Amino acid sequence: MTLLISAERLRGFIATAYCAVGISEGDARRIAQLQTEADLRGADGHGVFRLPQYIRRIKAGGVKIAPNIQIVRETAAMALVDGDNGMGHLVMSFAAHTAIAKATQAGVAWVGVRMSNHAGPASLYASMPLEAGMIGLYLAVGNANHLAPWGGIELLLSTNPIAVAVPAKSEPPIVLDMATTTAAYGKVKTAAQRGESMPEGWMIDMQGRPLTDPKRADEGMLLPLGGMEAGYKGYGLSLVIGLLAGTLNRAAMGRDVVDFNKNDGAVTNTGHAIVAIDPAAFGDAGHFKDEVDRLIRDLRASRRLPGVERVWLPGEQSQAKRIDRAKNGIPVPEALLAGLNKLASELGLERLA
Amino acid sequence: MTLLISAERLRGFIATAYCAVGISEGDARRIAQLQTEADLRGADGHGVFRLPQYIRRIKAGGVKIAPNIQIVRETAAMALVDGDNGMGHLVMSFAAHTAIAKATQAGVAWVGVRMSNHAGPASLYASMPLEAGMIGLYLAVGNANHLAPWGGIELLLSTNPIAVAVPAKSEPPIVLDMATTTAAYGKVKTAAQRGESMPEGWMIDMQGRPLTDPKRADEGMLLPLGGMEAGYKGYGLSLVIGLLAGTLNRAAMGRDVVDFNKNDGAVTNTGHAIVAIDPAAFGDAGHFKDEVDRLIRDLRASRRLPGVERVWLPGEQSQAKRIDRAKNGIPVPEALLAGLNKLASELGLERLA
Repeated sequence: MTLLISAERLRGFIATAYCAVGISEGDARRIAQLQTEADLRGADGHGVFRLPQYIRRIKAGGVKIAPNIQIVRETAAMALVDGDNGMGHLVMSFAAHTAIAKATQAGVAWVGVRMSNHAGPASLYASMPLEAGMIGLYLAVGNANHLAPWGGIELLLSTNPIAVAVPAKSEPPIVLDMATTTAAYGKVKTAAQRGESMPEGWMIDMQGRPLTDPKRADEGMLLPLGGMEAGYKGYGLSLVIGLLAGTLNRAAMGRDVVDFNKNDGAVTNTGHAIVAIDPAAFGDAGHFKDEVDRLIRDLRASRRLPGVERVWLPGEQSQAKRIDRAKNGIPVPEALLAGLNKLASELGLERLA
Repeated sequence: MTLLISAERLRGFIATAYCAVGISEGDARRIAQLQTEADLRGADGHGVFRLPQYIRRIKAGGVKIAPNIQIVRETAAMALVDGDNGMGHLVMSFAAHTAIAKATQAGVAWVGVRMSNHAGPASLYASMPLEAGMIGLYLAVGNANHLAPWGGIELLLSTNPIAVAVPAKSEPPIVLDMATTTAAYGKVKTAAQRGESMPEGWMIDMQGRPLTDPKRADEGMLLPLGGMEAGYKGYGLSLVIGLLAGTLNRAAMGRDVVDFNKNDGAVTNTGHAIVAIDPAAFGDAGHFKDEVDRLIRDLRASRRLPGVERVWLPGEQSQAKRIDRAKNGIPVPEALLAGLNKLASELGLERLA
């Protein structure tokens, strides 16, 4: 049985949990707002689902409750933010707002981040510049290595995601959010929980054979985007995203990436990068948004392959989910609810439901 | 039979051809240098192979011989360049050097380009910031639509490439250069020329069935990176690259993209974007390059899948080819040589060989 919980209730529950482990009320609310936003958008593996793990990491000393998040290098067009091992949501909010403020003057701003933590779905941060009418581009180093270099079998790379958000006028914004592997690791975990097998193309074992049993995920690795035919492209994308979001900022990359699922107390030194681009710097912003609308409509109106009901734009399904869940509530499966109620009891809080 | 021609001889031949159609000697040399560099790096479909087409387009009035390439908008951190319909190589060289100059001050600079033309391989421009010790990131709108939105069958998108170049210290730089389709369209043409069939996964027909006969390419479309399993990701990447390199700069995108193979006289209004990032703005540049070296060595030393002889870094095979071809010459297949000699005779020039 899956319960539907209102966004408001969920936000309140999450905020109370963070307060209970010592995070200030303002910060707790900010994290709760973003984590709930992940659930609203349908990024179920990045919302309240992560709460028990985040709280465990805070209690184990893996994440600081009162970080001194600050800019350590800057010009008019860039900044390097040190997150002081705070919650990724706080660090990335700071970084995104720094990028937006700088882009207001400079037209474009690039902000690198180190000493951060897992921050939820990439689309959350790429979308922040939308509110200022800007384009957002977000890159991150994933928090566990499940990918090998092309032809290799050592797990030296992660699913390093890229997200890009582009404002439109009457149409919803275009919001691409993708891991650079065929499937994100969360999909493997979900298949394992459900007792389902994975399609060929998601993972291979250390001999290069298709691995379709998600319970054997530890014996294999994810295939990079492009699969057996063109996986060297996904490998290359993961690598350059890691260099830009990690190495450039002196954040963890490659061999230094900590598997945050396996070690609650370790500092992850997670790296991200966020770029804000103001269309007004390039010309008339209204005209730009009109052109984005026109492109969206052209793509949506395309004739379709047999059996295809609709052509979707990146982010459109997530947008539809957000409208539905804001109205009807966020589905919380029984097992997750039990885990959250257990957490509440440990922290001396009221049950979620 | 394939002849080997020295880079010097090829450069001279190409420059003379451009001079013969009215391009200034300095510009002709610059284009010839870049086009030959494409051949040296093994981007055979983007080097001298394109010369007859480029000359045809210039003669048909599709490309201006003496463009007024200029910055039309700028801040300390960005510029918008109007290429005045000049040769893409000249426009993109101007844009890359603008980005490098601005990044020297601002740490990061983003330069958008409109009214340009086909400029050869993406890696040429992403690599330009390397000479200044900087990271280069290049995006472009392709010059013909061979891709449909995911689920659709109208060719509204192109193979929009991304290239990223990252400097190392003792190791060669990492240079990723990839189309956002499983295979670039040039590979389809090459297969057709050779009478070979294509692997499943490169193209589908308008019913969604695998298309493996490259002579029937006009009846189908390229599959986006990710293929049947995750092609919505390649579709999304192609789309956002087109928005950033095209729409943002008021260059052609979507329905407005001109197939430059089919129409010699049409203005393409090609869009690109180039970003230069100075690692020195983010910290000690020497330390950054040391870390890139360390990462490269970790990846290269990875244990391998059965049958795999070597793990390659993006750009490494191209680098090996460059060393070989600079020493031994650039292979020019018989049919290409005949075409180039025919061009020489039309322009009243000495034969290539």
